[in-house]
Amino acid sequence: MNIIQIINRKKYKENLSQEEINFFVQGLVSGSVKDYQASSLLMAILLNGMSLEETSLLTKAMVDSGGQVDLSSIPGTKVDKHSTGGVGDKVSLALVPLLASCGLKVAKMSGKGLGHTGGTLDKLESIPGLKIELEEKNFIQAVKDYDAAIISQTDNLVPADKILYALRDVSGTIDSIPLIASSIMSKKLASGADTIFLDVKVGRGAFMKDLDSATSLAETMVYIGKSYGKDTQVIISDMNQPLGLAIGNSLELIEAIETLKGQGPKDFESLVLTAGSIILKQAGLEMDQGKGEKLLKEKISDGSALKALKKLILGQGGDPELIDDYKKLPIASAVTEVLCPEDGYIEEIDPLELGLLSADLGAGRKVLGDKIDHGSGFVLRKKVGDFVEKDQPLLSIYHNKDLDKDFVKKVLAAYKFTKEKCPPRTLVYKHIS
Amino acid sequence: MNIIQIINRKKYKENLSQEEINFFVQGLVSGSVKDYQASSLLMAILLNGMSLEETSLLTKAMVDSGGQVDLSSIPGTKVDKHSTGGVGDKVSLALVPLLASCGLKVAKMSGKGLGHTGGTLDKLESIPGLKIELEEKNFIQAVKDYDAAIISQTDNLVPADKILYALRDVSGTIDSIPLIASSIMSKKLASGADTIFLDVKVGRGAFMKDLDSATSLAETMVYIGKSYGKDTQVIISDMNQPLGLAIGNSLELIEAIETLKGQGPKDFESLVLTAGSIILKQAGLEMDQGKGEKLLKEKISDGSALKALKKLILGQGGDPELIDDYKKLPIASAVTEVLCPEDGYIEEIDPLELGLLSADLGAGRKVLGDKIDHGSGFVLRKKVGDFVEKDQPLLSIYHNKDLDKDFVKKVLAAYKFTKEKCPPRTLVYKHIS
Repeated sequence: MNIIQIINRKKYKENLSQEEINFFVQGLVSGSVKDYQASSLLMAILLNGMSLEETSLLTKAMVDSGGQVDLSSIPGTKVDKHSTGGVGDKVSLALVPLLASCGLKVAKMSGKGLGHTGGTLDKLESIPGLKIELEEKNFIQAVKDYDAAIISQTDNLVPADKILYALRDVSGTIDSIPLIASSIMSKKLASGADTIFLDVKVGRGAFMKDLDSATSLAETMVYIGKSYGKDTQVIISDMNQPLGLAIGNSLELIEAIETLKGQGPKDFESLVLTAGSIILKQAGLEMDQGKGEKLLKEKISDGSALKALKKLILGQGGDPELIDDYKKLPIASAVTEVLCPEDGYIEEIDPLELGLLSADLGAGRKVLGDKIDHGSGFVLRKKVGDFVEKDQPLLSIYHNKDLDKDFVKKVLAAYKFTKEKCPPRTLVYKHIS
Repeated sequence: MNIIQIINRKKYKENLSQEEINFFVQGLVSGSVKDYQASSLLMAILLNGMSLEETSLLTKAMVDSGGQVDLSSIPGTKVDKHSTGGVGDKVSLALVPLLASCGLKVAKMSGKGLGHTGGTLDKLESIPGLKIELEEKNFIQAVKDYDAAIISQTDNLVPADKILYALRDVSGTIDSIPLIASSIMSKKLASGADTIFLDVKVGRGAFMKDLDSATSLAETMVYIGKSYGKDTQVIISDMNQPLGLAIGNSLELIEAIETLKGQGPKDFESLVLTAGSIILKQAGLEMDQGKGEKLLKEKISDGSALKALKKLILGQGGDPELIDDYKKLPIASAVTEVLCPEDGYIEEIDPLELGLLSADLGAGRKVLGDKIDHGSGFVLRKKVGDFVEKDQPLLSIYHNKDLDKDFVKKVLAAYKFTKEKCPPRTLVYKHIS
């Protein structure tokens, strides 16, 4: 067996065997497969596809390329949750403590943001003193003692994915469903949870631009999860406008806290409850989704969810008092209000554009290694479907540096107004399991 | 413009512009385009194709990546000839002096052999003292003084092809018609001839396995040549058995000399005459192909062709007396005769298998840099369609090292016999111009 033969087989649309996929992944990690060979194979995979079975074998080979987290010492069903990434997506920040308040133990590994999408870890790091890099045994101990923890992926997990991801980024081979699915699922599987919940974002601000490809990605990940014997559930949710109202790290954290206080934006709260009720069912805690949502709402209204968040923050070395005193968080020094330019209904708010502009403010990274300004970002005052009057507040810009002179113009270019009444956007398109 | 955008465009089956192709080729040579990006783009080209126009633009960018030979100081039409490579293909050795004997000046650059196919330069280097590496001005002077010369490609020609060829070899991206056509044509165009004749081999011993792909390659190269204003003619000829009888360097040289003495194998002589008459027409020397063949035959029978070969050898520092004294050539120390195992007709002689076995003997290279044993190889005694009797001589093995114990068995495995009479193989399938 050699790598050229393997490339040729995929080039001629043949299915690769487990041995061939292992040869490729192991060679990539050991260096015997060169990056120019890997990128050629990645392009052949992107253009000729992979069967569900091949994708599952690729995922397995990637998991086997490194260590795996052993969560078995934590009692009960360990659930995991992942979003494919969007703008204003702070679901984990609210959902993880909410689930913990229902009695689940949540050991979650998250990522940092890049490009127009934010990362849960950057949002958490708004909290002064909070540590996101824990050794595995301290991570497990934190979950045992404080019910939930959210940390960055430990170094020894899925080294093959680190190599492949970096290579795909510079070789035009990002947008392949088998490659995306195996990248996500290898990390989820190596993280050791018993059940996996995935939120696949679809739309202008997401990697999946249309419902067909989002569905295909969702089905592929469900197949992989099941072939590992892990219950895997996916919702496909809208990313044609930002989720909730806040974009930017401490701004999003505050929105998540407000949601746990029962004062969150409707769309965001609704997505948290939908996801949460599915996860409760996965964990066997509440099999009726309606009752699950009711339980979650109770945990919000009786203050348990907020308490769980305090515990999580405490467990990771942060100051839980910030929950009642947002001044302890970094907030940008200047706020510039953007007013509605006309009367009418909001037809579109381009999340990709606002995501990129928030990175311009410092809230996101343009390239790996960029430093984050945790206090900057946007707070939307209105969403798609809302009626607005000229000169009403539309959006607030939180910034520490002076705005470029056409910055507000660029922000407004993300909006489309109409005189016709237009409905709010659908939030969840599908649930696949 | 950046290379990822260019990769993405080809990935989405769009046609690349001249600027994009130039950006890629120039970046490849300067190093700003990385090899893992180039191989990803090469795979996208292989799988999604390139239009004739794109292929022609790619060829132009490759030609422009280096120097070009200026043959304008040599009087008359300068013709060039190239074969895509096969087993026993010593056409250039006979054809170049034959054309020179008709009054043409032939300045030819050739290649070395690799894998199962031989190279004209290796065959020429059987001649003690003969130099194949001449500086451009000495090359041109040799053609002026001795009518013809065959040398290796000078270093500054088409550097982009050297990089691309090496990368394709190790990234599974060899078998793409746009990439093969641009590789061949860029070298032909940079070599400075006025007209181009190409022999595309098709069959088991060729890179093109079927007539459709050979035709597509031929048509692509004709398109490229014409878009440069160069008359380009292609024949598609058979490589389902070795050409002629000899395989191996000095053995093939002797067969070419014998052919110029009027004693060559029929199929080989026929191909030389067909190619030669087309080239004479390209040069405007003899517009009627029948009369052209007649002229060529006269040059053989009156000894002019042989004289022209002597001049060529003399011009490149070799000893022309070897033409009448083959003992001056390296010939293997041992000859092992292989006898027919049964009565019948020869149905197949696998050229790929014999080519690889001749490399085992030392007549060819398995990897770049292997040293050649110029005296070893095979001489066939019979060809496809011939009737053979058990224990008649079938083939002679010329070898300097002891044969592996199952070597003869492997040689015989290249043959298929039948009791039914079977016709000789078609030699030339098509002429495309």
